[in-house]
Amino acid sequence: MSDESEIISRLKARAGVNPDVRVGIGDDAAVIKGADGRDLIACCDLMVEGVHFQLGWTPPRLLGRKALAVSLSDVAAMGGTPKFAMVGIAIPHSCSAEFIDELFDGMFEMANACKVSIIGGDTSSSRDSLFVDVSVIGECPGGRAVTRFGAKQGDRIYVSGSLGASALGLKLLEDGFRLDDSKDTRDSTWHQAVLKHLSPQPHLKLGRAIGEAGVATAMIDISDGLSTDLWHILEASGCGAVIKGAALPIADCVLSISSNAPNASGTDTLKLALDSGEEYELLFTASADSHEAVAMLSHSLGVTITEIGEIVDGQGLQLKRNNSLESIQPSGYQHVI
Amino acid sequence: MSDESEIISRLKARAGVNPDVRVGIGDDAAVIKGADGRDLIACCDLMVEGVHFQLGWTPPRLLGRKALAVSLSDVAAMGGTPKFAMVGIAIPHSCSAEFIDELFDGMFEMANACKVSIIGGDTSSSRDSLFVDVSVIGECPGGRAVTRFGAKQGDRIYVSGSLGASALGLKLLEDGFRLDDSKDTRDSTWHQAVLKHLSPQPHLKLGRAIGEAGVATAMIDISDGLSTDLWHILEASGCGAVIKGAALPIADCVLSISSNAPNASGTDTLKLALDSGEEYELLFTASADSHEAVAMLSHSLGVTITEIGEIVDGQGLQLKRNNSLESIQPSGYQHVI
Repeated sequence: MSDESEIISRLKARAGVNPDVRVGIGDDAAVIKGADGRDLIACCDLMVEGVHFQLGWTPPRLLGRKALAVSLSDVAAMGGTPKFAMVGIAIPHSCSAEFIDELFDGMFEMANACKVSIIGGDTSSSRDSLFVDVSVIGECPGGRAVTRFGAKQGDRIYVSGSLGASALGLKLLEDGFRLDDSKDTRDSTWHQAVLKHLSPQPHLKLGRAIGEAGVATAMIDISDGLSTDLWHILEASGCGAVIKGAALPIADCVLSISSNAPNASGTDTLKLALDSGEEYELLFTASADSHEAVAMLSHSLGVTITEIGEIVDGQGLQLKRNNSLESIQPSGYQHVI
Repeated sequence: MSDESEIISRLKARAGVNPDVRVGIGDDAAVIKGADGRDLIACCDLMVEGVHFQLGWTPPRLLGRKALAVSLSDVAAMGGTPKFAMVGIAIPHSCSAEFIDELFDGMFEMANACKVSIIGGDTSSSRDSLFVDVSVIGECPGGRAVTRFGAKQGDRIYVSGSLGASALGLKLLEDGFRLDDSKDTRDSTWHQAVLKHLSPQPHLKLGRAIGEAGVATAMIDISDGLSTDLWHILEASGCGAVIKGAALPIADCVLSISSNAPNASGTDTLKLALDSGEEYELLFTASADSHEAVAMLSHSLGVTITEIGEIVDGQGLQLKRNNSLESIQPSGYQHVI
């Protein structure tokens, strides 16, 4: 049994050196030296039935949107602009032609909204699960991609949007709530959480603007959970971090539901915010001098960006809560294979 | 239920026009206008357990080689040079860490031999089957990619190497023969057929040379079978073809086994050659004037290239055998989904 990070470490160690590859295995996306002062960014993201989604609660249109969105988010997390996508899809007999049409409806909808062209792919049957792999090719100004390994002591840590809704949405789905269960106003809050999980929006404008402004020292998108993804930055950059618990931007629907819903009462909202995967918010570090520049980006794009902590010397992740520090382990999602 | 070509047709009709995309959905690979007089070539190919391979008879190292080889072959079929690859892999619990290591051994082996860098990808668990999707990015001189849609009346039809061994190899595997069953000299012929199926070699030098020489009017690699893949060229180019049955280069191991092996006796070797999928030979058309240039390529690269027929007015595929013409339908592999 290996977990995902072990496999990636082994692959990274085996990949040869190619001077045209600025960033290889182990970041959100790879970066290749391009011509004409532009670099190419390339990545792929899998969506596997029974692992990333359940057919029973996933409308196909949203699945198509999400399958593309998660790869677009990786390009955004490098500070780049996605341009082209390819789709590898293995379809079991249980999926009807209508299901697949709707899945591609959603994918083309997302592609058009993000000015991304779907240029090819591969289709196959599958004897059991539905499997979707979307590869995206994008670009950024030469040498300007934002990697995971540039965070430095004293840098501030920022996160876009709010956290916790995706994990809560997943919990609601697991508890039996469905998107079309709209019976009273309480449901609108539940909807928000479930939609955040089933239909995340990649932060393309913000990612690109952060890249172009050269404001971030490291960046990643939150796919595995803040604690795990920040850990990835810390490991790659060789430093530690202190997160201010009180500063974490917990999603309104999480705060509301945690106090109202019988099934969710007693939920530790801070833990939910720290560990909630598939948020597709951008997590980045920037020097203290860039505080004003970050505020301007937030204002000009209309995206909430919250300072949640600081990069420190040493290693590991600490949470500051009620004036005391506690070490925390990355406890977001890890594929155990 | 839809077959693969129906899905691709529907997707093709929905993809918008992007002036930067020279070739989009529906060819072996997509072609994107690049800077500096080079175009980008991009494609992906799926290998799905139970559809493209059976774990019971597939050594993991060969599976890794093949998963990359089939995507490299697509770039070769566009007349390009593959440069970078990404791997999306979903791994069931039944696959051991050693199995996955060996799979990647084979993939890196193939990558190094072909001067291709593995730059990233995504890993996931899978609740049942093993899925591998390999995306490849390559390049070719600007505007020089060889598509499926340039064949013209009077063009000669050529195929590299020989045909039929892959289908025969698959039949031997289905009949219980395994790669390590080397008990007598007869087995070496069986080995050839099985190895052609389990470990195909993409024609990278030939594909690139054909592209650079500008000698082909259309090209495709034989993944679904000669009859089906030639049909793809005919449909895309709006013409018909006559194949000379006597000219088809049938693999030696096929000729040998069809006359010797009890299980394979009575096999129609011509039909096997016409329909055998996963050969990864290159099938291309070139004007009659280019006959000498094709012969020179064959000689300089040491690759057998055989003229097997001619592009004609009209549509459909005809086989000339014993001085009579019979219409044939594409009967290679189609994923029915």
